[in-house]
Amino acid sequence: MRIPKHIGIIPDGNRRWAKNNGMGKEEGYDKGIDPGLELFKLCEKTGINEITYYGFTVDNTKRPKEQRIAFTKACIDAVELLSKENAELLVIGNIESKMFPKELLPYTKRRTFGKGGIKVNFLVNYGWEWDLNNLKKSDSSKKNIINNINSNDISRVDLIIRWGGRRRLSGFLPVQSIYADFYVIEDFWPEFKTEHFYNALNWYDKQDITLGG
Amino acid sequence: MRIPKHIGIIPDGNRRWAKNNGMGKEEGYDKGIDPGLELFKLCEKTGINEITYYGFTVDNTKRPKEQRIAFTKACIDAVELLSKENAELLVIGNIESKMFPKELLPYTKRRTFGKGGIKVNFLVNYGWEWDLNNLKKSDSSKKNIINNINSNDISRVDLIIRWGGRRRLSGFLPVQSIYADFYVIEDFWPEFKTEHFYNALNWYDKQDITLGG
Repeated sequence: MRIPKHIGIIPDGNRRWAKNNGMGKEEGYDKGIDPGLELFKLCEKTGINEITYYGFTVDNTKRPKEQRIAFTKACIDAVELLSKENAELLVIGNIESKMFPKELLPYTKRRTFGKGGIKVNFLVNYGWEWDLNNLKKSDSSKKNIINNINSNDISRVDLIIRWGGRRRLSGFLPVQSIYADFYVIEDFWPEFKTEHFYNALNWYDKQDITLGG
Repeated sequence: MRIPKHIGIIPDGNRRWAKNNGMGKEEGYDKGIDPGLELFKLCEKTGINEITYYGFTVDNTKRPKEQRIAFTKACIDAVELLSKENAELLVIGNIESKMFPKELLPYTKRRTFGKGGIKVNFLVNYGWEWDLNNLKKSDSSKKNIINNINSNDISRVDLIIRWGGRRRLSGFLPVQSIYADFYVIEDFWPEFKTEHFYNALNWYDKQDITLGG
């Protein structure tokens, strides 16, 4: 079986799940933490090299304050949980804005936790414009793009899995996602099941990889 | 019904269609010209403002020579057909490479044909790296990205329709596609049917539009 080296995770649908379950929208984010850890362990078991979680974006911070507080807290909790695993962890996003939680500043340089192993990237206060804006500081005579964006420590993504049924990237790593195969799961992220992950891998195995050629 | 302002078209599957029909792979491209015109007329009728066709890319030019000649000719023929319609036509791509067909140079500044109306963009020898590389020439103190890429005359895409079953962008306008909804049709592009277009519009009508918020 052909296994993707790098998986991107768009854990969408927390608010819709909360609403469907009679809760306030902001109560959904907390239910996304355990699925994140479960998914990490499946990736570890399967031999995935790298995983990127879409935490929250600069766009998201325009949402109502109680939601912003709740998704920020969920990201902090998720990163702290992951730091107890064997992983090479990096939190990446615009740290110059006050929306970036100071609790996560110690994670903004890649560090090895436990025995290391899988590269884990966690996007926090990430913005696609912020990411690409760094290109403006680089030399136009050199063609390379991926080495000159703010997220240059994140590799090309092979497979993106999005929960919650929406078929769009919503600003997720536009450069690294250029050739990524995009698998959408209708269930909301808090409804995460092991079979979602294996269904995505089985689907990915059937895709051809051309990198645009 | 909520109609997308700008539709991106990824007309994939010409080679697989040709192979399935006992032809050489390069013979499929020519069968993609009529669908392109048919789709244009449907967009015109529906009141779409802008349409972008993914002609061929810098990546594609690495394919065998007989395929390259065939898809280049199909793009020239398609643009010439569209220039007989009422449209504001722009061919865009890397004109500094010898892979850019000289027959299309007259179309590389937007021009009005007939009574004008719908904006039609045709990507020819387009490369996402070429497109983003222009950011390196711009002022990093200004945040705007879309005005500073090579394809700055192309607006944000609302709906991308891809034929041929593959669920990836393959370098299609990464900046304008950030928030685009992505609809995939299993049939190959030469099998284009009117209902594909209407199915995509009906699906799009059911999506919510958040622009990342």
